Amino acid sequence: MYDGIVQELIDEFGRLPGIGPKSAQRITFHILQTPTFDVARLAELLTDVRERVRFCEICGNVSEQDRCTICRDPRRNPALICVVEDAKDVSAIERTREFRGLYHVLGGAISPIAGVGPDDLRITQLMSRLADGTVQEVILATNPNLEGEATASYLSRLLTTMQITVSRLASGLPVGGDLEYADEVTLGRAFEGRRTL
Amino acid sequence: MYDGIVQELIDEFGRLPGIGPKSAQRITFHILQTPTFDVARLAELLTDVRERVRFCEICGNVSEQDRCTICRDPRRNPALICVVEDAKDVSAIERTREFRGLYHVLGGAISPIAGVGPDDLRITQLMSRLADGTVQEVILATNPNLEGEATASYLSRLLTTMQITVSRLASGLPVGGDLEYADEVTLGRAFEGRRTL
Repeated sequence: MYDGIVQELIDEFGRLPGIGPKSAQRITFHILQTPTFDVARLAELLTDVRERVRFCEICGNVSEQDRCTICRDPRRNPALICVVEDAKDVSAIERTREFRGLYHVLGGAISPIAGVGPDDLRITQLMSRLADGTVQEVILATNPNLEGEATASYLSRLLTTMQITVSRLASGLPVGGDLEYADEVTLGRAFEGRRTL
Repeated sequence: MYDGIVQELIDEFGRLPGIGPKSAQRITFHILQTPTFDVARLAELLTDVRERVRFCEICGNVSEQDRCTICRDPRRNPALICVVEDAKDVSAIERTREFRGLYHVLGGAISPIAGVGPDDLRITQLMSRLADGTVQEVILATNPNLEGEATASYLSRLLTTMQITVSRLASGLPVGGDLEYADEVTLGRAFEGRRTL
């Protein structure tokens, strides 16, 4: 629709999640028509983020070093591990300031439809972390939907033989929703009211 | 919320129009977690678009050369000029395939509230284009809202003394809306049914 590169940039923005052709066009024209928009900085960040960001070798959270800031923080309680599906969920929980333990990012949830089984998740790594007896409680904070519940019950069965308390975030989170989008108060309440499985 | 560069990229995406913090986070994680996403290409396009894209010296449309592809096209009818507010509107009208004349991009609409007067628009440039007598009809395709109507009536008053037919896109466009978002059929009908002012 547009001359060469303008259309190419629109198409490229359109490949990003949640950006349709109209939004992509709007964004591209905003960049073209706003001289103060620092296009060089965005370009540099895009290149750098791929090079510099990796995933924490312990918990799987995003990190610029081998271990993430949470795993490196000596003030965090190593007896408590909160298991989440995605690194975005770590940030959502951190915003509640309710939790001072460590995290474990599974990298998804069990979903037979999407072809994701337990072996596709970071479950072996979780079991290794639990082996030395430091961890006393595992909080299962997978999403309150079908896949998240399936993953939580799979993990709770796996952990029954161990001397570890297994808990699940309290109801209070809207069922069928996505943990990432919960507001701070609701998510905070869910932490307080977590129940032992 | 996140370590250094991840948060920086989220913030930078959040500066783009229509992208809130949640979308910015989703986009950033998509880029981080999708190895097939060509981040180098997006970075390159961003840099290139600023350097290479300018605005057509005749009509004000986006272009990679001094004159845009439409102004350079000898098959376009130079007797017909369609006046639009924004370069995005050119693309919307081109999609209808109803119009084979040339364009003139005003760069906005008259809006006392936003402090935009006739002098802030490319009206002088339009008058120069009309001076040599080639143009027989000016189609006013500003948005069918308050500012667009004000601009159209300002221009039609300005053009009454000249031997030029002045027309306005037909109603059929939803009033109060934005030309950029009209569907092809509605916009095409509006072209067919344009009325002389």
